[in-house]
Amino acid sequence: MPDLPLDSEEVVIRALREDLGAEGDVTSRSALPADLPARARIEGRAEGVLAGVPVAERVVAAVEATVGFEARLVDGDAVRPGDLVASLEGPARSIMAAERTALNFLTHLSGIATLTRTFVEACAGTDSVILCTRKTLPGLRSLERYAVECGGGRLHRAGLHDGVLLKDNHVALAGGVREAVAASRRNAPHTLRVEVEVETLEQLGEALDAGAEAILLDNADVETVRKAVDIVGDRVPLEISGGMTVDRVREIAPLGRLLISVGRITHSAPALDLALEIDPA
Amino acid sequence: MPDLPLDSEEVVIRALREDLGAEGDVTSRSALPADLPARARIEGRAEGVLAGVPVAERVVAAVEATVGFEARLVDGDAVRPGDLVASLEGPARSIMAAERTALNFLTHLSGIATLTRTFVEACAGTDSVILCTRKTLPGLRSLERYAVECGGGRLHRAGLHDGVLLKDNHVALAGGVREAVAASRRNAPHTLRVEVEVETLEQLGEALDAGAEAILLDNADVETVRKAVDIVGDRVPLEISGGMTVDRVREIAPLGRLLISVGRITHSAPALDLALEIDPA
Amino acid sequence: MPDLPLDSEEVVIRALREDLGAEGDVTSRSALPADLPARARIEGRAEGVLAGVPVAERVVAAVEATVGFEARLVDGDAVRPGDLVASLEGPARSIMAAERTALNFLTHLSGIATLTRTFVEACAGTDSVILCTRKTLPGLRSLERYAVECGGGRLHRAGLHDGVLLKDNHVALAGGVREAVAASRRNAPHTLRVEVEVETLEQLGEALDAGAEAILLDNADVETVRKAVDIVGDRVPLEISGGMTVDRVREIAPLGRLLISVGRITHSAPALDLALEIDPA
Amino acid sequence: MPDLPLDSEEVVIRALREDLGAEGDVTSRSALPADLPARARIEGRAEGVLAGVPVAERVVAAVEATVGFEARLVDGDAVRPGDLVASLEGPARSIMAAERTALNFLTHLSGIATLTRTFVEACAGTDSVILCTRKTLPGLRSLERYAVECGGGRLHRAGLHDGVLLKDNHVALAGGVREAVAASRRNAPHTLRVEVEVETLEQLGEALDAGAEAILLDNADVETVRKAVDIVGDRVPLEISGGMTVDRVREIAPLGRLLISVGRITHSAPALDLALEIDPA
Amino acid sequence: MPDLPLDSEEVVIRALREDLGAEGDVTSRSALPADLPARARIEGRAEGVLAGVPVAERVVAAVEATVGFEARLVDGDAVRPGDLVASLEGPARSIMAAERTALNFLTHLSGIATLTRTFVEACAGTDSVILCTRKTLPGLRSLERYAVECGGGRLHRAGLHDGVLLKDNHVALAGGVREAVAASRRNAPHTLRVEVEVETLEQLGEALDAGAEAILLDNADVETVRKAVDIVGDRVPLEISGGMTVDRVREIAPLGRLLISVGRITHSAPALDLALEIDPA
Amino acid sequence: MPDLPLDSEEVVIRALREDLGAEGDVTSRSALPADLPARARIEGRAEGVLAGVPVAERVVAAVEATVGFEARLVDGDAVRPGDLVASLEGPARSIMAAERTALNFLTHLSGIATLTRTFVEACAGTDSVILCTRKTLPGLRSLERYAVECGGGRLHRAGLHDGVLLKDNHVALAGGVREAVAASRRNAPHTLRVEVEVETLEQLGEALDAGAEAILLDNADVETVRKAVDIVGDRVPLEISGGMTVDRVREIAPLGRLLISVGRITHSAPALDLALEIDPA
Repeated sequence: MPDLPLDSEEVVIRALREDLGAEGDVTSRSALPADLPARARIEGRAEGVLAGVPVAERVVAAVEATVGFEARLVDGDAVRPGDLVASLEGPARSIMAAERTALNFLTHLSGIATLTRTFVEACAGTDSVILCTRKTLPGLRSLERYAVECGGGRLHRAGLHDGVLLKDNHVALAGGVREAVAASRRNAPHTLRVEVEVETLEQLGEALDAGAEAILLDNADVETVRKAVDIVGDRVPLEISGGMTVDRVREIAPLGRLLISVGRITHSAPALDLALEIDPA
Repeated sequence: MPDLPLDSEEVVIRALREDLGAEGDVTSRSALPADLPARARIEGRAEGVLAGVPVAERVVAAVEATVGFEARLVDGDAVRPGDLVASLEGPARSIMAAERTALNFLTHLSGIATLTRTFVEACAGTDSVILCTRKTLPGLRSLERYAVECGGGRLHRAGLHDGVLLKDNHVALAGGVREAVAASRRNAPHTLRVEVEVETLEQLGEALDAGAEAILLDNADVETVRKAVDIVGDRVPLEISGGMTVDRVREIAPLGRLLISVGRITHSAPALDLALEIDPA
Repeated sequence: MPDLPLDSEEVVIRALREDLGAEGDVTSRSALPADLPARARIEGRAEGVLAGVPVAERVVAAVEATVGFEARLVDGDAVRPGDLVASLEGPARSIMAAERTALNFLTHLSGIATLTRTFVEACAGTDSVILCTRKTLPGLRSLERYAVECGGGRLHRAGLHDGVLLKDNHVALAGGVREAVAASRRNAPHTLRVEVEVETLEQLGEALDAGAEAILLDNADVETVRKAVDIVGDRVPLEISGGMTVDRVREIAPLGRLLISVGRITHSAPALDLALEIDPA
Repeated sequence: MPDLPLDSEEVVIRALREDLGAEGDVTSRSALPADLPARARIEGRAEGVLAGVPVAERVVAAVEATVGFEARLVDGDAVRPGDLVASLEGPARSIMAAERTALNFLTHLSGIATLTRTFVEACAGTDSVILCTRKTLPGLRSLERYAVECGGGRLHRAGLHDGVLLKDNHVALAGGVREAVAASRRNAPHTLRVEVEVETLEQLGEALDAGAEAILLDNADVETVRKAVDIVGDRVPLEISGGMTVDRVREIAPLGRLLISVGRITHSAPALDLALEIDPA
Repeated sequence: MPDLPLDSEEVVIRALREDLGAEGDVTSRSALPADLPARARIEGRAEGVLAGVPVAERVVAAVEATVGFEARLVDGDAVRPGDLVASLEGPARSIMAAERTALNFLTHLSGIATLTRTFVEACAGTDSVILCTRKTLPGLRSLERYAVECGGGRLHRAGLHDGVLLKDNHVALAGGVREAVAASRRNAPHTLRVEVEVETLEQLGEALDAGAEAILLDNADVETVRKAVDIVGDRVPLEISGGMTVDRVREIAPLGRLLISVGRITHSAPALDLALEIDPA
Repeated sequence: MPDLPLDSEEVVIRALREDLGAEGDVTSRSALPADLPARARIEGRAEGVLAGVPVAERVVAAVEATVGFEARLVDGDAVRPGDLVASLEGPARSIMAAERTALNFLTHLSGIATLTRTFVEACAGTDSVILCTRKTLPGLRSLERYAVECGGGRLHRAGLHDGVLLKDNHVALAGGVREAVAASRRNAPHTLRVEVEVETLEQLGEALDAGAEAILLDNADVETVRKAVDIVGDRVPLEISGGMTVDRVREIAPLGRLLISVGRITHSAPALDLALEIDPA
């Protein structure tokens, strides 16, 4: 299980503010006695991979520190309909105030972990791995990257600030692959590899000649990927991207020691269905 | 076009910080001259409904106020592959620094608007409307609600603080529909209607007797919805929810003046594909 | 005793920063030994109703977590000159650093609770209740609303965002009571009642006809209020406002099940006198 | 007119958030067309002294920068019922969204300026001045001090951090006037005067002997004040405090060149009645 | 040992964010097992005076609350090469994540304390003291003032807001020493002394005549300082500044009861060398 | 001239708050008329390299947007005593309020640029460059890195989050150079090079064998550096660190294409003397 991101607490507080405003949960406050004790269960409603259980726990604790939260499954675990994910015990009002926000994190992050796992399984038995991209939902990047790791995916750079990746737009603006790679090697900190996106084998050769330290081959067919693997060998990491589906990953993954980056696992993962049931204690 | 949410600027800044960190865009800074002018186009790559164009504009302005941004389509407009959404002009480095964050907003919000529009169209020619729920992604609620409106959907309460909705969990904790409704009517501010979730026609009758001011009928089959419409008449708003698909909405919408709430439009909308192309000016 | 508002901690920290700046209490630091232990008492100096004792406790804890704070009276209790409200024990410097900020909260909020109680008592034996308004002091709304509840008052909407109240200005701008009510019913979320301000019985009738779900009758004389009660009956809540004094409330409260809103209890309540006395332990 | 405090913008934003939440003004948005132009007037409803006109202007600008705001009276001016304070012109929705927050600042601060002026006028023709204290409402200290200046009052220290004032509690804890003064003179930065509170003429003598650089005489009768003036002469500033009423100030002010500090002007000033009237443009 | 400044926690968090970003310590996370326990020692590498040990402790606790931190020396203590300053015990990854930020505080603040002590020792046996100035590094003022106190120095005003010091620029703008002093005495709060900078004995006389309550004599030679001491006597505090070196302080300090202010101790103190050594536990 | 860091505005505001508190500049407010116009000059007082002129400009603009600020020299320029750096024109009070904070930035950053330039000049005519380290002052890292670039230095990683550098402590904890490098290569994102610190040529060989992508040779004598250059050749970047003085850099720089990292240029650079002179306009 990877470490929770450093900004988790902040993201949790912000999400609770969205839901609670200044007034809090007016429904529970009007309908339930202040001191009514309750027991609740977070349960699976569909099949998938969990991510965000400790985030849900922080949501609950942020609403009311005295609510008991016992996780029965951990992030990265498989979950099926009816599975008990966590048990809660405490004031009914507090659990109800935390419910939706906790579930919104859990169902979104588990959705990402679940979709990631599907792609990761398509690499099973090969040397290739699945990578996330920067196509994340605004404000949720670190948690979404965490969910990718829960699903077995690997991390790419976290943002524009911690990696050099010359995309097609950079190449066009810089006047060519060679020019772009040379400029970045000259000017970027030595701690960062210079990776460049190419779309043809000619560009790939040009990139290697220019000293590129990683190659991103975008939108290539299987045959081109195969040739690229031959050309690149062990010299630098080779990343493959572009319209990845599980089927396409199954074809490509066995071709080499590839880094296959998939935008969909973060920008389009449907929520995994999970629910909270509560009863008076 | 609805108003942009009050917290848009804040959400934009936060998203840029995620991507830019303290160091900014090390790729463009290493590969491109500081003063290289460029022109760029945001274009459609798939068919859908736009939402977030002014958010993308704010992203660009937050990176560099002097970049020109001319929107050619507005939120709520249909977009097709190849359509020009907006033209940009300014320093290449600034446009590249803003690109991914701007697109992350635009593709996510347009994805929501697009999915919403599909549901809204399933209500065409009826008196029913589509409502969003609180199943939104943490930190993005106000913008996602905005996107729902761009797609033709209507708003439910914004959070726990501005509406009374007694869910099944509240009813169970309060000891019954009647007890829950009575307590909330007694204690909640008079400015808020008291809405209660029911699952049977018996509960529905009990809710009306207790003075419920809106009814949410959850997980009912078409026949039950039909009967509920007869019973409720014009007395209070009737909301229908539970596993809504476009087909189900087509069946239900014609039955009355219904509020049909759909979680999927916010928690599981896939991104709408849009891209930015750039050239030296 | 109502729940402390969600933003109490934040408001407390902000208030302490005002008083302590970056340097803290230069007087105590220069005049008192760092480790001088002390005992202190917060005492009543006038007759009234307490509100803010747990806020004062948070002020003290925010200055120094180890100071003991034992509340002898709770919010909503009556207090008289000489009554012991709370006992404190800990480093003299810390108690002195917290003193004024703690008292500023306590005397202001108790002032509101005290004035509210006077109005509430003028409703004794009737079905009418006292409501606060949005005429609160900037930055203190949630705590002032809490103090109103400590005094026995009831809450109106918390802000412009969680209630629809069409004031005379809206009516003028919308072109009439009927037009304003119709537009709001059409466009506002179904979770919010549509309330409209009227000044005459004609307007009141028009409002009911248009489907207003609550009526605010402003600046009406007793006779008009009496007739309004007859007309409205149990159909919708009836709120009365405008230049409320205790005497006027005594006249109006018995006329029906009225919501009497009073701006003075928040915008003009004088502080309730309370003081802190300290001795070396 | 004094300078607006440095934190005015921040306090304004905070106040608007209280009222607008994330959703903004749901009433105006549901009842008024988005582009309805309007003209509004802020008018006096009672007699007093203005403070906060530029704060109201900032509220309006923070809601919508394009609203025209023309002040006709400035802070420190007298205002009477019917007087035009400011004219506004812009979108009706924006003016309505700003109205209550703008008035809450203006009525509170003008209330303080008005009460201050009453005390200041009681000093007319004498060498004495009125001072505010640290008995301010939490979060509003700098604006309240500004309002005191608008009313003609003078400033005391801003907080515990920028002045040494040994109160009776410090004296008790330090073991006497002499001990407290000596310790503070030894330890406090040389840029701060050491002021000490005394209740008797004996203590006053002791304070002067110990090198006190200002004296606060608390709760003294007129005769004692007179003697204190004789004793202190021009040696150090002499501050008088304790249960100040306008009548008491009239008696005391002529006795010397006194600093008369009054808590009531900030902790218990009733709001000054002002209102906003609006019409379609 | 003086109190840690009120903003220490905030400054610590900010510094950690600089170093950890959103991703944290990628080196330790990639190279070290998550649960590897370790013991570490913070040790002296040069001779000096410690300041910032509790700040380093807060850095470590902010990274991971369970890391044990036992201080063996306290702020203000002398340290020599090889001296053990503190022992740490906990997860290796957490200690490594905190190391640099903790040392950056400790070496900078100890550098200030060390340089301050050198100046303070140059006053040994005299009645003069060393004062810091406002020439501090942006964002670190309160901690640097704390470090000055650890080194035996005394505090001047904390900022422009809590002291009146008329510099040569003010005197020029106000039209002379007399005019500047008179205006400030008339307008500044009575809690602040009015100090004025002079460069000649004529100006000094003028300042005293005008009622200056403290004098700053800038850039004077020893003879002029001697005469200034004679003229000023015990009337007001006399501060000396301008190009202070240890040698110059040795000459000047014995001449009177002087406040000698030294900018160098905060703006130019070199770091004191300290290091952290770690081993598997 | 490098780009100003993204957080410059925030750092400027924070620094001004330190100096101005809530009250602002009480000296100028008491001594100078509100509308007194003035002209000021920022001038050199010592020889060095400028850094921070646009930061000083932001300080001034943050105090009062209408103050004219005309830079006569730019960051990276040499400055000598008497040189005019910038001219200011505007209200005297505003310039005085900004003076110290502006100079504190300018003198500190210019101090860093000046010291960096000295080291950079010691590399003149060689292929080696000077790098900064993470030994920066808390809260000022991005501006200090900017100043290093102004002085001609190059950037290392910005923090723990954007580079893998296995220090001696990591090597000890991981069980050896080989083990540390292998683990990081396996686990770190492919966008980051894996750099490792070695102290002997044996370790250096082990590092290269293990696939280290950059080498940091710490505390080596000239002869060892020479051999390391021979061994490493063009395979990976070679960084040299440890007790760097200008003389040592002169010896080492000619030996190869070295990255010479110097902690002193950020943690111990003395301020460069600059001053502001002002006159009535």
